[in-house]
Amino acid sequence: MLNLVEILGVLAFAMTGIFEARRLKMDFIGVSSVAMITAFGGGTLRDLFLDRHPLFWIERWPFAAAIFALSLVSVLVLKQQRSRKNRALLLVVTVFDALGLGLFSVLGVVITLQIYPGLYFIAVMMGVMTGCFGGVLRDIVGNKVPTVFQKSQLYATCSFAGCVVFLPFHWLGLPEAVSIPVSAAVTFAVRMLAVKYDIHLPL
Amino acid sequence: MLNLVEILGVLAFAMTGIFEARRLKMDFIGVSSVAMITAFGGGTLRDLFLDRHPLFWIERWPFAAAIFALSLVSVLVLKQQRSRKNRALLLVVTVFDALGLGLFSVLGVVITLQIYPGLYFIAVMMGVMTGCFGGVLRDIVGNKVPTVFQKSQLYATCSFAGCVVFLPFHWLGLPEAVSIPVSAAVTFAVRMLAVKYDIHLPL
Amino acid sequence: MLNLVEILGVLAFAMTGIFEARRLKMDFIGVSSVAMITAFGGGTLRDLFLDRHPLFWIERWPFAAAIFALSLVSVLVLKQQRSRKNRALLLVVTVFDALGLGLFSVLGVVITLQIYPGLYFIAVMMGVMTGCFGGVLRDIVGNKVPTVFQKSQLYATCSFAGCVVFLPFHWLGLPEAVSIPVSAAVTFAVRMLAVKYDIHLPL
Repeated sequence: MLNLVEILGVLAFAMTGIFEARRLKMDFIGVSSVAMITAFGGGTLRDLFLDRHPLFWIERWPFAAAIFALSLVSVLVLKQQRSRKNRALLLVVTVFDALGLGLFSVLGVVITLQIYPGLYFIAVMMGVMTGCFGGVLRDIVGNKVPTVFQKSQLYATCSFAGCVVFLPFHWLGLPEAVSIPVSAAVTFAVRMLAVKYDIHLPL
Repeated sequence: MLNLVEILGVLAFAMTGIFEARRLKMDFIGVSSVAMITAFGGGTLRDLFLDRHPLFWIERWPFAAAIFALSLVSVLVLKQQRSRKNRALLLVVTVFDALGLGLFSVLGVVITLQIYPGLYFIAVMMGVMTGCFGGVLRDIVGNKVPTVFQKSQLYATCSFAGCVVFLPFHWLGLPEAVSIPVSAAVTFAVRMLAVKYDIHLPL
Repeated sequence: MLNLVEILGVLAFAMTGIFEARRLKMDFIGVSSVAMITAFGGGTLRDLFLDRHPLFWIERWPFAAAIFALSLVSVLVLKQQRSRKNRALLLVVTVFDALGLGLFSVLGVVITLQIYPGLYFIAVMMGVMTGCFGGVLRDIVGNKVPTVFQKSQLYATCSFAGCVVFLPFHWLGLPEAVSIPVSAAVTFAVRMLAVKYDIHLPL
């Protein structure tokens, strides 16, 4: 179950990293590096902060090989698509990103509670960080103020909502096969609504 | 004693992060993230580099909760103060920052010497890094060249001075209840003098 | 053997950090910080990701002292050389950088295979990261999109080539006193050719 969540999250974030890197006209090495930074960044910080070794992408090294292959394919395919409309691409990126955000956030909560049971506040923080930090690193590498810190449509807040929703399920002892997808779906839904209706934090 | 130093340092740096984030017109999530990055950044690197787990802010999770609450209050209060003079605010930030710098620098030295006794050069480096790196991360996230690396009024040098002053006290076996405040006060005083008289490194 | 490689790599990268920091007109503290970030950045990430403690620059603290001294000398010497041609300086930086890249890349592979024998894909990734990340951090601190991610002359690819060349030597059981210099020389040679003939990735 956790493995599946991780695979989907890694793929979703890797795709956003690839699209972003192509937008910046990076070459193949740049594309695969940014894809890996985006896909592995949040989880790497989580594993380092929790002293959890081997890191998840060292333990499951085919992730890195898959992103490498995916980057190569994308470089070949996206080259030919340059004339296409950008709006469709942006929507795809937003959907992938919301998916990755939801999956990684709840995964961060689950793993933190495995290592530090009862530290609910830290678990939610770590969930938000796992979900958001890949994107933060992607933006820092792309030399812009990370979107998540700017006054824009809800982002970290969506992750926060999904993480908090997970807690009562955890206390009630619900099986993770239920609570994890529901929590990820909450984050995803709030994020998509925030983008569609341009919802900002009032403060 | 170390706890008190840590609490004061965290609060001082959190305040500078909050003011900086408000200046960049971030929303509540942005403000609390930047506050945490500034307050936890240096100490997190120190703990990771020294393999010291749980990280100080995981062990003392109310820190994070307090910064969260402080950010919420600040967002509400600072909104109404926008018409006030900026100069007073800048002075407050500078004082808080100098305080955090002094406290975190000496704390970095003390903790490094607990783990690697006798490594005085590394202890001073780690002290300077613990003191300065929260601000470096705050500046990187805010997309500017970190002030500490630019030709500006003494900053890292003040941290360096406080860390070096601690060493003879340590060798003489002075109680930390004396040597820590004195060392932090040296950093604080040198920093305030450097700002007041616009002192730069000649090189 | 590994020690010698590390010493040469640290010195080479420290020099590139020093030149870059002087170009940005940083003061002595800025210069030595950027020199250390460039020289220690890649290896620190490698050690953290592999959970290898003490970090290489904590274990061998004279590295940091040497960079500190080197920075001081450079600040004094480079001040007087401002009138000299920049082209010669750029060439020197490029050569030092290619040297550091070759040495650190193969070192990353060797150390990863010591800790995770058989993880060849991760070892190559870690080698490329160890080689490239000091420069990435140097560029982020200098507030620009890291050169290695941009469409420019081959860089990460050179590191990749050197790391891959090392693998058959490793499988054949060649002594490291042969395989390490050859691998570093491959990276160095490919990099110098890429600069001289302005070779880019076609993708």
